Amino acid sequence: MAEMFGERMAAAVARTGNCAVVGLDPHLDRLPGSLRARYQGQSGQQFRVEAARAVMDFNRIVLTAIKDVVPAVKPQFAFYEALGSPGFAALEETCAFARELGLLIVGDAKRGDISSTAAAYARSILDPEGPFHCDSVTVNPWMGADTLDPFIDACVATGGGMFVLVRTTNPGSHWLQHHGTPSGAECVADALREKGASLVGPSGMSSVGAVVGAMAGDEAAQLRARMPAAWFLVPGVGAQGGSERDAVAGARDDGLGCLVNSSRGVLYPPKANQEEYDSDPGGWVLKMAKMHAERFQFDE
Amino acid sequence: MAEMFGERMAAAVARTGNCAVVGLDPHLDRLPGSLRARYQGQSGQQFRVEAARAVMDFNRIVLTAIKDVVPAVKPQFAFYEALGSPGFAALEETCAFARELGLLIVGDAKRGDISSTAAAYARSILDPEGPFHCDSVTVNPWMGADTLDPFIDACVATGGGMFVLVRTTNPGSHWLQHHGTPSGAECVADALREKGASLVGPSGMSSVGAVVGAMAGDEAAQLRARMPAAWFLVPGVGAQGGSERDAVAGARDDGLGCLVNSSRGVLYPPKANQEEYDSDPGGWVLKMAKMHAERFQFDE
Repeated sequence: MAEMFGERMAAAVARTGNCAVVGLDPHLDRLPGSLRARYQGQSGQQFRVEAARAVMDFNRIVLTAIKDVVPAVKPQFAFYEALGSPGFAALEETCAFARELGLLIVGDAKRGDISSTAAAYARSILDPEGPFHCDSVTVNPWMGADTLDPFIDACVATGGGMFVLVRTTNPGSHWLQHHGTPSGAECVADALREKGASLVGPSGMSSVGAVVGAMAGDEAAQLRARMPAAWFLVPGVGAQGGSERDAVAGARDDGLGCLVNSSRGVLYPPKANQEEYDSDPGGWVLKMAKMHAERFQFDE
Repeated sequence: MAEMFGERMAAAVARTGNCAVVGLDPHLDRLPGSLRARYQGQSGQQFRVEAARAVMDFNRIVLTAIKDVVPAVKPQFAFYEALGSPGFAALEETCAFARELGLLIVGDAKRGDISSTAAAYARSILDPEGPFHCDSVTVNPWMGADTLDPFIDACVATGGGMFVLVRTTNPGSHWLQHHGTPSGAECVADALREKGASLVGPSGMSSVGAVVGAMAGDEAAQLRARMPAAWFLVPGVGAQGGSERDAVAGARDDGLGCLVNSSRGVLYPPKANQEEYDSDPGGWVLKMAKMHAERFQFDE
């Protein structure tokens, strides 16, 4: 069995000197021009096959560029699912390639279901024999605390990790997450502390983490108090409006704990830089990934 | 654009005379013996390719058997995902084949995410040009009311439908769903009533439905009062412990409104009937589907 996810993430952060994650979100209208040309004007299954191949080539460029810069990458499953089975084949290949390069993988699938169904999801994403084999997976808690257990069991069995949706920062996120006293988010946080306790390693970090958005401010610090050992996966920086300060509001006193994701901000250029991007997408992505990593440096 | 989902479901119920749904959950250790033999002893990608082909052959048998018996089928995405891209190819083919046969499809994917990501999920499952093209999709509301909107928009654009997880009946489901006053489930129900109002057709049923489990009892009736126009998708009958009476506790006064799913109870035999099943799986499934349909007859 692999070392526990919480420890592997701590080691990757120490090795790269930062807590930055790059999201692998293939937006088909923003890929480099030469790749876009391969699927433009096509439709149906032929479009999906060509687009999926272009996505895989794009991800190879991105992953090769950033392999020594950041500790982890986060493929968003939705964008691969949109391309159907060819898209999922590209996702399988992307995960395998990232693993070869030594990058940790957060499978952003937001799965959540009951018993044998949850176990099927956990196997396909966390099991080394599973098709996608990520190091960790994002999980939705709405269906109940019992629905988290198949994922916890998979973390124990495989050395994998999980990030449960505790508090997101999209416009309507307060609806159920701030509902009740304690809030829904606080209920989930307390459960994660308990469920993750046996998966805390020598670094003090657990394999059971939480998604806590970048605009949660003081709330992030309060959630940290409830989950001192959890890695926080922090979306919402950059394109989604969160500041650098927001992003690390949930860090521990030692500065550790927040893994800050950027997807579009690293992968795609502003319009003014389109030509530079098209001529050397790997160079552009490397430059942006380095800037992202510098913003979220971590010195022990 | 296709007629609205709520109406199409009402028509399918009227045509078949029942509100029974058959879940397409391929449990690889329970498929008919001759199909199991094709992947047993294999591993890795070869296993997944052979198992996915066997699943597709099994689904053809099932769908052909039940095509005139029930109004709809519900593939559970997790079991296809477990087989990676070959599994998703089998799912694509399953959806296309069910559609050819005139069965409505509930894509049980339980997706939920923000803005462009939710839109990507909605497209891949509800769009006629999307790879999976189901008539409806199950959706998780935890991330916020705003995260339901891309699915609502897709229902408007495509004539598709959705079933939002309001109240499930797994052991830990009360955790967030019963949290607060009104409860989390009631908050979601009220939002669905409002969001689904413009998608109510002449039958009185909306394209925006709800998942309400089979053991909710009185609570199902209370949720019905909050969502008079919603189709309820009811899991949890049979293998999961719910009674027939529980299953229709959320029906309207006219008897309409509950779509009762059975997966394992229809697809797989008890041990004593294994030989009969292996010799004629389609015959077995037809017999069980008819029993399921008789339990949930609907006479206008």
